[in-house]
Amino acid sequence: MAVARRTSRDIRSDSRLIVVRALLAAGESTRAALAEDTGLSPATVSAVVGDLLGSGVAAEAGLLSGTVGRPTTGLRLNPDRGRVVGVYVEDRHFQATVFDAALRRLANVHVTAPAPVEAADDVIDRIARTLDTALAEAGASHEDVLGVGVLLPGGMQRPVKSALAPDAIWLHLDRLRDRLGLPVVVDNPLKAIAAAELWLGAGRRCASVVVANLGEGVGAGIVQDGAVVRGATGTAGEWGHSLLVFDGRACQCGRRGCAEAYVGVPGIRRTLAETAPGHPLLDVPLPGFAAALAAAAESGDPAAASAVERTAHYLGAALADLVAIVNPEVIALTGWAAAELGALVLPVAERRVRDDAPGDAAASLVIEPSHSSGMEGIAAIALERFMRDAGLVTTRVLPAL
Amino acid sequence: MAVARRTSRDIRSDSRLIVVRALLAAGESTRAALAEDTGLSPATVSAVVGDLLGSGVAAEAGLLSGTVGRPTTGLRLNPDRGRVVGVYVEDRHFQATVFDAALRRLANVHVTAPAPVEAADDVIDRIARTLDTALAEAGASHEDVLGVGVLLPGGMQRPVKSALAPDAIWLHLDRLRDRLGLPVVVDNPLKAIAAAELWLGAGRRCASVVVANLGEGVGAGIVQDGAVVRGATGTAGEWGHSLLVFDGRACQCGRRGCAEAYVGVPGIRRTLAETAPGHPLLDVPLPGFAAALAAAAESGDPAAASAVERTAHYLGAALADLVAIVNPEVIALTGWAAAELGALVLPVAERRVRDDAPGDAAASLVIEPSHSSGMEGIAAIALERFMRDAGLVTTRVLPAL
Repeated sequence: MAVARRTSRDIRSDSRLIVVRALLAAGESTRAALAEDTGLSPATVSAVVGDLLGSGVAAEAGLLSGTVGRPTTGLRLNPDRGRVVGVYVEDRHFQATVFDAALRRLANVHVTAPAPVEAADDVIDRIARTLDTALAEAGASHEDVLGVGVLLPGGMQRPVKSALAPDAIWLHLDRLRDRLGLPVVVDNPLKAIAAAELWLGAGRRCASVVVANLGEGVGAGIVQDGAVVRGATGTAGEWGHSLLVFDGRACQCGRRGCAEAYVGVPGIRRTLAETAPGHPLLDVPLPGFAAALAAAAESGDPAAASAVERTAHYLGAALADLVAIVNPEVIALTGWAAAELGALVLPVAERRVRDDAPGDAAASLVIEPSHSSGMEGIAAIALERFMRDAGLVTTRVLPAL
Repeated sequence: MAVARRTSRDIRSDSRLIVVRALLAAGESTRAALAEDTGLSPATVSAVVGDLLGSGVAAEAGLLSGTVGRPTTGLRLNPDRGRVVGVYVEDRHFQATVFDAALRRLANVHVTAPAPVEAADDVIDRIARTLDTALAEAGASHEDVLGVGVLLPGGMQRPVKSALAPDAIWLHLDRLRDRLGLPVVVDNPLKAIAAAELWLGAGRRCASVVVANLGEGVGAGIVQDGAVVRGATGTAGEWGHSLLVFDGRACQCGRRGCAEAYVGVPGIRRTLAETAPGHPLLDVPLPGFAAALAAAAESGDPAAASAVERTAHYLGAALADLVAIVNPEVIALTGWAAAELGALVLPVAERRVRDDAPGDAAASLVIEPSHSSGMEGIAAIALERFMRDAGLVTTRVLPAL
């Protein structure tokens, strides 16, 4: 990736994205309020609004009466400009969510296949059918769709190791595009959640936000100065595969000692197994393990409590590395830390972050649950891609595929 | 730090910085060539060049004859616009380098005090005198100075632990400014080297560069999309205090297991001490230790070779964390890796980076010695600050102090 050359078109493009995000946040606004909100000059806002009205991305919303003066023409994103569809594919799960062009959720369909879907053509077929069902639910047709965004866990982050076809679908994107007959973008779920934080979440008030996901897998999405950080090969934010213990536990990625091997759910189970071999909780399947561990710890099981405590220290130390290197204003947690185990783990983990982070780097750090969804994020990315195809946006770094 | 609101002034400011950097790289250029180099529109370049000529930052350089057509007016940064001074203060060392306003080095003075300088007033006095000497060497006067940039190792990165006053001088900036009667910026050396990479080094060809410093201390400076990453509290890039070994060796920062405790020079000596207690190299003072270890390893000392090998693995694993989280195109090394020990350590370390980095994140990573100096970087930062004070630049995130 060479240095992006910024042209006057790019600068206009930036202004358009800024105004689109401001409209999204405000719901309805006016040219004057947009200039106030964004800091862009009234002339720039007028020009940008003209572009957005001309392309149908924004629409007039009737007269708004303010507190003083004459009523002024209201502006909003134009929900009827079209539809954007987010698709999530993992293992046997196929989910499609239809949004209007103001990123409001219209319909959601989640289909679980009765058996693993392995052939690429079968995966593509299932995606197409799930998407059609969701469009029907939303009362929308193919022609309404501005873009489709596919959330693909893992697959693009490293060479495909799984035999499961969904992970490898990004190798067959041309066939997916042909089959759908629609513009398709593919992105990693954490990049998508980061995009959602940027457009709709903590990124609206902070320049620097890290989304940290704690589930079976562990990773981060980084927002800095108005963009999701992608890095040279699109893998920036692979915090789960930063080191926690040199030559430590084997990680599923093939390396030893990664943070994921300690704070991913299988890693937490391994922590329990190390200190309490034969503990009955070790028989609980992974999807229910974090909740079961939390319940056991709360009901006074000392081995469970010890595994929770140890996990809190691992997590705090791993988050402190993010603070050391990225130094964000906000870390937004998703996965188990925001759900099953967070209440037990976070107080200790937060103390450890503040103790371990360099100097006062974590002094005003906010650690909070992320309320952003990958589906909203991938819809935002698909909408941004549509604006690019429409010539409205030029400079943002776009998803890898 | 709230989200920066971008205004049309900021956009013009960005264009000015882009043109200044292009002029710096080109030496001499023309409006047409600048438009070509930067991707800015000819109209924008003309307006920006007008601003830069008006403020004296750029100057006309006579007629240049191209390969076709009429000769056109050449443009360059105006070296005579004034002088910029970089100052380095550490322990008993006081150094001042004078640059012209095209960032060419005019004079350098390095004074070593006979005894530790501890009182803030004494430090300030020595800075002032070193600066005056350097200005005299450069045939420049106080009135010529557009700005002074002070490189301050350590001090701003964490609470001051050292009793040495130079580390604490940033607490007395007002007094320093009063004494010098000049605009002063203070920045961390790694941020400054990163700025030098951005203005003059790898940042000219890549959007994402990390400078990694390996000395007694260890740290990184991160360049992303045309700016040095500073983070919420200005401490982004504290890679030396990211974790290598959970609950590992005590680090001088107070935490355990930091990368610095393994790949900083004292850490390397400790590695040798662990495997070869009583080894004669352990008596070599720190400043000469890396070179002595390299010589011993090359002459076949097995304990030295083993410490070098171990260090290479520590370094590779620690660099892989930077790749995982930041995913840069280039890692530019400075400190011992670029000097005494690099030839022995880097081949093994590079293999380890590529093995440990997630997926193909390091496949096209370039690891190279940094040719940038902190002095050039702090001069660039001081020049940028001057342009800000002159109303030419608005948006860049500036040094903390």
